[in-house]
Amino acid sequence: LRAVWLEDGSVSVRNVREPRPASGFALMRLICGGICNTDLELQRGYYGFRGVPGHEFVGEVVESVNTKLRGRRVVGEINIACGTCAWCRRGLRRHCPARAVLGIVRHPGAFAGLLTLPERNLHLVPPEVPTEQAVFTEPVAAACEILDQVRISRGQQVAVLGDGKLGLLIAQVLALRHARVHLYGRHRRKVRIAEKAGVDGRIVKRLPRSAYEITVDATGSPAGLRQAVSMTMPRGTVVMKSTVHGPVDLDSAPVIVNELTLVGSRCGRFEAALPLLKTKRLALREMISDEFPLDKAPLAFSRAAERGTLKVLLRG
Amino acid sequence: LRAVWLEDGSVSVRNVREPRPASGFALMRLICGGICNTDLELQRGYYGFRGVPGHEFVGEVVESVNTKLRGRRVVGEINIACGTCAWCRRGLRRHCPARAVLGIVRHPGAFAGLLTLPERNLHLVPPEVPTEQAVFTEPVAAACEILDQVRISRGQQVAVLGDGKLGLLIAQVLALRHARVHLYGRHRRKVRIAEKAGVDGRIVKRLPRSAYEITVDATGSPAGLRQAVSMTMPRGTVVMKSTVHGPVDLDSAPVIVNELTLVGSRCGRFEAALPLLKTKRLALREMISDEFPLDKAPLAFSRAAERGTLKVLLRG
Repeated sequence: LRAVWLEDGSVSVRNVREPRPASGFALMRLICGGICNTDLELQRGYYGFRGVPGHEFVGEVVESVNTKLRGRRVVGEINIACGTCAWCRRGLRRHCPARAVLGIVRHPGAFAGLLTLPERNLHLVPPEVPTEQAVFTEPVAAACEILDQVRISRGQQVAVLGDGKLGLLIAQVLALRHARVHLYGRHRRKVRIAEKAGVDGRIVKRLPRSAYEITVDATGSPAGLRQAVSMTMPRGTVVMKSTVHGPVDLDSAPVIVNELTLVGSRCGRFEAALPLLKTKRLALREMISDEFPLDKAPLAFSRAAERGTLKVLLRG
Repeated sequence: LRAVWLEDGSVSVRNVREPRPASGFALMRLICGGICNTDLELQRGYYGFRGVPGHEFVGEVVESVNTKLRGRRVVGEINIACGTCAWCRRGLRRHCPARAVLGIVRHPGAFAGLLTLPERNLHLVPPEVPTEQAVFTEPVAAACEILDQVRISRGQQVAVLGDGKLGLLIAQVLALRHARVHLYGRHRRKVRIAEKAGVDGRIVKRLPRSAYEITVDATGSPAGLRQAVSMTMPRGTVVMKSTVHGPVDLDSAPVIVNELTLVGSRCGRFEAALPLLKTKRLALREMISDEFPLDKAPLAFSRAAERGTLKVLLRG
């Protein structure tokens, strides 16, 4: 079986053993995968990762006990929970301490001819959503997670910092959910994509101070949190969406003096993302910078790592 | 008028002009003041401060339009709000952007023979609360602020990090409000004080990981936030009570992966603190390390700065 392989900083395509789905798991053929910044970080060895990456995908179910899944186009939630611990019983499977994570922690990823996931993680792709849009389900769900964590009222002004892939998705999702979103970015070209979904894009040198009740840091930069804190009003909320390696730059004084709330935010529910994809009001096509067949994964990864690139897709 | 004076790192007692209460302000004679860590930081010049410090006090009202205040023992909220801005109108006077702060920002402090504050900031001290306990109203209110910000259910386990003055008060207040509080400190002697109010004190080398739904950082140390984060369960809350100068040590990854909420917490309502003081169930007497007359303020400040000292009082 052909699969992308990360090891010691390099990307290769090699033959691996075909995965055997455990009980309750489905076997899928990869139709399309998306390269995420996390994949680039895995390549750089941040988590001591070695193996098959990939967690954004659309697959076709090849084997499944559930006959409703067989032969269908699916997307899948990436956290593989134990299902029996206190977290799982409380419905917080994404926080199961024993979880594996597709293509990240102890479970081979989606960038391979075949992959497996628990059937309960799978969601049928609505027929009206093309594969090139469905492949965004996982990051759109991560954007939707904010709506599950923070109350955003209709018409409320929200600042989103960062015009990378996640920033663009967050800005669009919040705008479609009736927030008035100001997206602070550095690239006119990127910010314009979010403007198609009703976002107000801003390219500025000086960020406004104490101006927003809710600010989302999606910069991916160690300085982003400090910037988000300074843009937020007393008693306001900063959503932390940027995983940064190593320590971040935080001055606790304004957080305490202004009694801010900082909310860490990670993966989200696919049930929230799929209806948004069905609206076709997210500018996703514009976010695809390039696509490659699976066998050209080394090229795809270097393309994805170039400055200014947005989403790079891999075709199964 | 004799007053404590901070300038260029030194503490002196000098004659200053007698304060004239503005309209709506009362004039008070100082009965007793408490030295807070913030006062020591003002001495070190952290805010470019120069002037009369002091914001923890019990006074006797000398002049007031409100006849119910005259001659009475009072404590006073330290934020002097404009009363007309959007924040004040929303009832968030403590966040008024134009505020002065007693003994900290643009208003002479309480460590003087006489001081002024808006009458609306003043609260009568209940007759059953002795002055040496009433002088703790402001820091007890700061501890109570946590209860206004975070829902703590009856019997819920809460970790408090730090056995300094604020940590001891927070632990006691939360315990009196029916939380099961584990106070992590370094000094058996200090931790024992909080144990009198029903707190479970712990002197340990290794802090437990992912063990609490709610953790309060009251260490006053740049490492405290990181420790509090690592002790907190997924989806849990870290209350930030430690103002630390300069950047703090924060790794954003566990905050995001575990979707923690970090809540900055500052001053609180005196209305919440006074009923707690009336219960007489807070171990406050044990927290008084020393007391000095106002004229011996230089000695009092150096005593307060000694390692292991808890509260030092100044007598007016």
